[in-house]
Amino acid sequence: MSDNSRDIIFIGKKPLMTYVTAAIIQLATQPMITIKARGLTTAIAIDVAQLVLSKTKPAFEIENVKIGSESLVAADGRNRDVSTIDISIKRTTG
Amino acid sequence: MSDNSRDIIFIGKKPLMTYVTAAIIQLATQPMITIKARGLTTAIAIDVAQLVLSKTKPAFEIENVKIGSESLVAADGRNRDVSTIDISIKRTTG
Repeated sequence: MSDNSRDIIFIGKKPLMTYVTAAIIQLATQPMITIKARGLTTAIAIDVAQLVLSKTKPAFEIENVKIGSESLVAADGRNRDVSTIDISIKRTTG
Repeated sequence: MSDNSRDIIFIGKKPLMTYVTAAIIQLATQPMITIKARGLTTAIAIDVAQLVLSKTKPAFEIENVKIGSESLVAADGRNRDVSTIDISIKRTTG
């Protein structure tokens, strides 16, 4: 994994198209980007990836999708496991 | 892909643990199962997969994660694209 944080798009609470635009801009200069999300925003991450692909078709493709879980300390001090998703998108080859 | 519908767990609106239990029961007799979801329940599908793995550790592992989109006709008659996720889980080898 690259340590260049510019190739990671972390999904938060901004409008969906903010992330789609950011991803397409990064893909203009980076060989690969990774869209990361956790918890309920994992569903948004999939939407963002699909929109990036459909808006730039057929320039980019899904390289890899990884799911996992992370332990977070919640506001009440207890540990909570949240699910995570990492979607890598790269330029279509051939 | 197998045409055996018993090895597919489709995520709906039931409580999370319903799907976790169903998946673990299917994995007792099937070599591989696929957890499918679309729209906002894609986030739940990831939770279900992570819970299946953590509750049965180290018996099963993620075989593949596939994301995509599907065109649905919404209640207002217009087409809407929804994101989908397919998570395949198989018995750990070796």
